[in-house]
Amino acid sequence: MEPTQAVREPRQDRSRATRQRLLEAAVDCLSSLGWSRTTVAVVAERAGVSRGAAQHHFRTREELVTAAVEYGTEVRLRQVREHLNALAGRRLPTLDVLTMLAEMYTSPLFRAALQLWVAASSDEQLRAQVVPLEARVGRAAHRLTVEALGADESVPGVREMVQATLDLVRGLGLADLLTDDSARRSRLLRQWASTLDLALRDHTA
Amino acid sequence: MEPTQAVREPRQDRSRATRQRLLEAAVDCLSSLGWSRTTVAVVAERAGVSRGAAQHHFRTREELVTAAVEYGTEVRLRQVREHLNALAGRRLPTLDVLTMLAEMYTSPLFRAALQLWVAASSDEQLRAQVVPLEARVGRAAHRLTVEALGADESVPGVREMVQATLDLVRGLGLADLLTDDSARRSRLLRQWASTLDLALRDHTA
Repeated sequence: MEPTQAVREPRQDRSRATRQRLLEAAVDCLSSLGWSRTTVAVVAERAGVSRGAAQHHFRTREELVTAAVEYGTEVRLRQVREHLNALAGRRLPTLDVLTMLAEMYTSPLFRAALQLWVAASSDEQLRAQVVPLEARVGRAAHRLTVEALGADESVPGVREMVQATLDLVRGLGLADLLTDDSARRSRLLRQWASTLDLALRDHTA
Repeated sequence: MEPTQAVREPRQDRSRATRQRLLEAAVDCLSSLGWSRTTVAVVAERAGVSRGAAQHHFRTREELVTAAVEYGTEVRLRQVREHLNALAGRRLPTLDVLTMLAEMYTSPLFRAALQLWVAASSDEQLRAQVVPLEARVGRAAHRLTVEALGADESVPGVREMVQATLDLVRGLGLADLLTDDSARRSRLLRQWASTLDLALRDHTA
């Protein structure tokens, strides 16, 4: 007995909403409880979803957590993309771009990703799933940063300066893990903005 | 019955040697097995020390691991210090300084410290122990970097560039966690060396 179109649609919507609640709860749990306490059961409870329904979507913690970090990153990158599109070609000041990046790398999403990265570093099976995800996220973040900075990567050294910017904010994310590093970070980003402007100045469109 | 001086000394030496073996094995275990599999028992076995002797030195995993990261860092910083002293005032090329820093932040010791940092981010008690350690290590690494680069921090912006250098290599350490990032890192450090030389040039002694 096939359900009618009208019945099937809401059920798919419900399933999608459940999945999304689980993914969001998984990022929450990871960033606040850490890897070992983030089980499918704990995430299901935080999402207000039955354990059976959670198991239907994600069989293992590894599957759930990898999907959650991927989903969270896609959502965040899409927001940044929309923000850039809304500027309609106007360039953001370099410091604003850096501040936006630093916010991404000090967010609960970064903390969740860090838990996943670190767990994968001593788990071969998980590493095999996380390495392609890390590569995709890395490429997407790089492209967005190039675009936001208006950087011309055909000029020697510019690609490395964009990469250095992303490695720098990743390091800043780590420095913010245990203590509030925001005051030092602000001073550092102001300095970095002028360094970057100097390095990219003659090469930007 | 007090042991004679001759007997007491070797016993103290033995105890110190046991402790050191445990600390070194703990860094090994953390970086290869990760936090959750690094128990006092596992570390004792890797160190070739009885479980009882290990428990005599360290009651908990947290105590052992924090001491191990502190010990490993002190040893590494002392080696760098001796290397700088041996130069007797000659300045290392900036790229050599950066390469030395990047080696520290991609070593098993950094991976071990990362495991500890990330575990502490969701464990209040552990965080209370790790925060002062992180501060001490951070200050020592900063001082060494200033000295190795011959940077004059009284010049506006120089302090932030030294900090950015350390945040950058920390980010590079993270980027090397799951895949070999050495080729990209070399290109990036060459570019960073010229950026840093430019920023510090008029201000170095």
